[in-house]
Amino acid sequence: MSYDTKWWGWGDASKRASLPAPALEFIRSELGVDDRSTLPVALEEVELPAPAQLPPGLRDIVGEDAVLTGLEDRLRRSTGKSYPDLVRVRSGRLEDAPDAVVLPGEGAQVRAVLDLCASEGVAVVPFGGGTSVVGGVDAVRGRLSRLIALDLSRLRGVSVDRSSLTAALGAGLRGPDAERELANHGMTIGHFPQSFEYATIGGFAATRSAGQASCGYGRFDDVVTSLCLSTPAGELATPAVPHSAAGPSLRELVVGSEGALGAITEVTVRVRPSPERRLYKGWILAGFSEGAEAFRELAQADALPDVARLSDPEETRVSLALSRGGRASRALDLYLRLRRRQRGCLAILGWEGSPEGVARRPALAERVIRAAGGVGLGRTAGESWRRGRYEGPYLRDELLDRGLMIETLETAHSWSGLEALYREVGSAIRGALASQGTPGLAWCHISHVYRDGASLYFTFLAPRRTGSEIEQWRAVKTAACEAIVSSKGTITHHHAVGRDHAPYLAAETDERPFEPIFLVPRGTARVGDM
Amino acid sequence: MSYDTKWWGWGDASKRASLPAPALEFIRSELGVDDRSTLPVALEEVELPAPAQLPPGLRDIVGEDAVLTGLEDRLRRSTGKSYPDLVRVRSGRLEDAPDAVVLPGEGAQVRAVLDLCASEGVAVVPFGGGTSVVGGVDAVRGRLSRLIALDLSRLRGVSVDRSSLTAALGAGLRGPDAERELANHGMTIGHFPQSFEYATIGGFAATRSAGQASCGYGRFDDVVTSLCLSTPAGELATPAVPHSAAGPSLRELVVGSEGALGAITEVTVRVRPSPERRLYKGWILAGFSEGAEAFRELAQADALPDVARLSDPEETRVSLALSRGGRASRALDLYLRLRRRQRGCLAILGWEGSPEGVARRPALAERVIRAAGGVGLGRTAGESWRRGRYEGPYLRDELLDRGLMIETLETAHSWSGLEALYREVGSAIRGALASQGTPGLAWCHISHVYRDGASLYFTFLAPRRTGSEIEQWRAVKTAACEAIVSSKGTITHHHAVGRDHAPYLAAETDERPFEPIFLVPRGTARVGDM
Repeated sequence: MSYDTKWWGWGDASKRASLPAPALEFIRSELGVDDRSTLPVALEEVELPAPAQLPPGLRDIVGEDAVLTGLEDRLRRSTGKSYPDLVRVRSGRLEDAPDAVVLPGEGAQVRAVLDLCASEGVAVVPFGGGTSVVGGVDAVRGRLSRLIALDLSRLRGVSVDRSSLTAALGAGLRGPDAERELANHGMTIGHFPQSFEYATIGGFAATRSAGQASCGYGRFDDVVTSLCLSTPAGELATPAVPHSAAGPSLRELVVGSEGALGAITEVTVRVRPSPERRLYKGWILAGFSEGAEAFRELAQADALPDVARLSDPEETRVSLALSRGGRASRALDLYLRLRRRQRGCLAILGWEGSPEGVARRPALAERVIRAAGGVGLGRTAGESWRRGRYEGPYLRDELLDRGLMIETLETAHSWSGLEALYREVGSAIRGALASQGTPGLAWCHISHVYRDGASLYFTFLAPRRTGSEIEQWRAVKTAACEAIVSSKGTITHHHAVGRDHAPYLAAETDERPFEPIFLVPRGTARVGDM
Repeated sequence: MSYDTKWWGWGDASKRASLPAPALEFIRSELGVDDRSTLPVALEEVELPAPAQLPPGLRDIVGEDAVLTGLEDRLRRSTGKSYPDLVRVRSGRLEDAPDAVVLPGEGAQVRAVLDLCASEGVAVVPFGGGTSVVGGVDAVRGRLSRLIALDLSRLRGVSVDRSSLTAALGAGLRGPDAERELANHGMTIGHFPQSFEYATIGGFAATRSAGQASCGYGRFDDVVTSLCLSTPAGELATPAVPHSAAGPSLRELVVGSEGALGAITEVTVRVRPSPERRLYKGWILAGFSEGAEAFRELAQADALPDVARLSDPEETRVSLALSRGGRASRALDLYLRLRRRQRGCLAILGWEGSPEGVARRPALAERVIRAAGGVGLGRTAGESWRRGRYEGPYLRDELLDRGLMIETLETAHSWSGLEALYREVGSAIRGALASQGTPGLAWCHISHVYRDGASLYFTFLAPRRTGSEIEQWRAVKTAACEAIVSSKGTITHHHAVGRDHAPYLAAETDERPFEPIFLVPRGTARVGDM
């Protein structure tokens, strides 16, 4: 099988994020790292455990060519794309990998593979784009000795209902595949998470993904109307109706189930006409509290734009420093100096849709932002953000090459709990970095905004502690998760549970004693284990 | 205990719906019924099975005064308010009733009652307002010999978070109680189903209720942010965050669970500022297809008003006839004659909110309605509907007094499936009425509208077949439900499952073989039975 992405990092190998000289200087001065380069090992140096022998019936179901056991095939399905995943992959040392990759070509084959694996005691990890950043596709065998990655990338059906404005999409379609097909009908889902280029429709549903334009188009779980789930106990197709009061929602049980109940094979989503106009603008707000308060007002006045992002002062400062040299950053830099707003917060607001809507809607939002002391930076800052919206993971590869640790995590809370959550998690991250002997930077933004609250998205950057990278990372991640739990935020707003958040899941149901019945232990299905 | 409602029907006994002479003449001429009156028996004539003895520990938990065993107390918790419920209650002959009514005063008492009943093998039916129209509170004992109604009306806490615009509400608050408390804060939930006056917050959540203004304020399950559930296995409090990607949604498992998992004790909902302005207007559209198409366009253009209702020609004709004599109906009648629109469809659109919004928003919607050939009837028709919005159940009592059967049922479908569903269910109802020897009237409206589809709400009216009322009703209900299932509509958009829809629940998961794991068998919790 041929691949269009790096095996050791994110995306197309030919596409590299640039770190201009001032950005490198900023990193050197802030983090004290030199320019030593820590590149990934060569593919030939990667070692995986020898694969266990799998039931020959698998090949009978999907065909000889659709069962892969090559080292690169297995390697590419052994992790997601979190920082610890990349550390392990780049080092060439992985705890485990699937014994084979199985690629069913249709729903009936998915079901037959699950049946066979259930009866033979083979663990199954459903695999979409492999972009999980929470250990959601790890090869965890539990008490079973054999494990396959069930790669759903061949499930690529598209069927559009133009009257109901819905589309039934195969689980294996990547974001751009689905959008290209829908664009032929003049439609869009409007779901653009940072992982958009490589994540799949099935994965978006399985993890309750949220895109950067969630304020306008909704999160992915908002746009799912129904889906098909294949399990060893049978198949479930939830009803394709706009709403039902027929009991607990089976759709909401499958959405977010992360492969623990089976494999999602098809997802029907609401679609919208492709936007005819787009308008993205930047603002500077005096501080994070003032900005959050303005965002709250926008949400509660039903005046949210389709994209609404608010960086804290540190994220504003770091973004500016890392992109220094660009036209937008120069303008912004100058601006902040003139206004003595170096602790200012960058806000990006974006509107999409009909010319009429894009002309009318910004007025109310801009009034709120200006009333909060916001100062407009115009379209350059907005467009600059929009153009770079998928660049983060490419930049991460560059930073890893330079001996740095960079990782993100996210949470959400009601407005009344948001400020304390922001403070506690930020200080937990900074404290843990310092106590690991690697003081670093931590910053945050709001990017999903609701009438009753908002998400917080943290990034941290520090020198990598060579040889004990995973321990270093885990100390910071644990401190952040514990701060989230004790502040009563959710352990994840849109990255899902996976292995990394599993220990914190019980806290989602409050501190009272309760035996949860539907918690997903690790975000992976060990089907034979059920 | 004293009560403020009729034991044999709906609402305050002093509030009677009026049936003017032309309305009575219409009924006589269309249905051939005479004026014989079939009144309910006197309370003294009602017979209930002798109550079983309950564990004395119950009184220790809730106090002597909070365990009721009087005939009227038990009678009032033995049914909901569906047509067959009223037939049974009015006849004074009920299959069964709770052995006692237990009224816990706080969450801890709920838990203790459930624990005791679980260990003693006593069935428990959580009871809110008792307004179910699908057999949701029936005293079904299963294999247990003792049963209590767990009346939650004493759970009345109110706590408002003004920053997050949420309110934690006790499950036992009736609609008007909750709205009165919120009005003190200048807030509203905006949830106004026809049962609003007597249904409770807990019941709204347990049944996925949808209010008449669902297009604007959302259904009740849309506004629930978190809730507390008390079960024999412990208590569950879902996280009070705007959104979480931490696995399947436990909130969406509790919402719609109809008491099958335990008792909902508290519900946190999103609230909004009380509307400063209201504007309700009527239109006449040329036909139901044209009207539905206009509503689809409104929804897909994000131009829906807060209330959007479209009556079919028969509902338009019957409403007009039953209210004949009123100013609005005279004007409408004249209008239709002049325009030769006797097969026209009445549409009601309503906007609520800020003066600015109520001034701005109607323009786009009215453009769509006019482009579809709609003719404005002005505010009189709109206000007339709004004033009469809770009158239906009072009118039903009057019609029952006059020897008629009147019942409602509802469903929903995507736009592409809606017209066939409308045709099939309507013709199933009319066919079943005729085959029962009681030809009658059936009509329908759309009242919950989405980008991808809409609800259909059917009413049927026919002469009652004295002595075999239940069989007559069941034949029609069964025909309608089978038509819904075969047209792939949902068996319920907002009335929930209860006993009446339980046989059709499996069809919600498509025709493929699947062993559903979360289906609620009867909409009642037999806790000791779990």
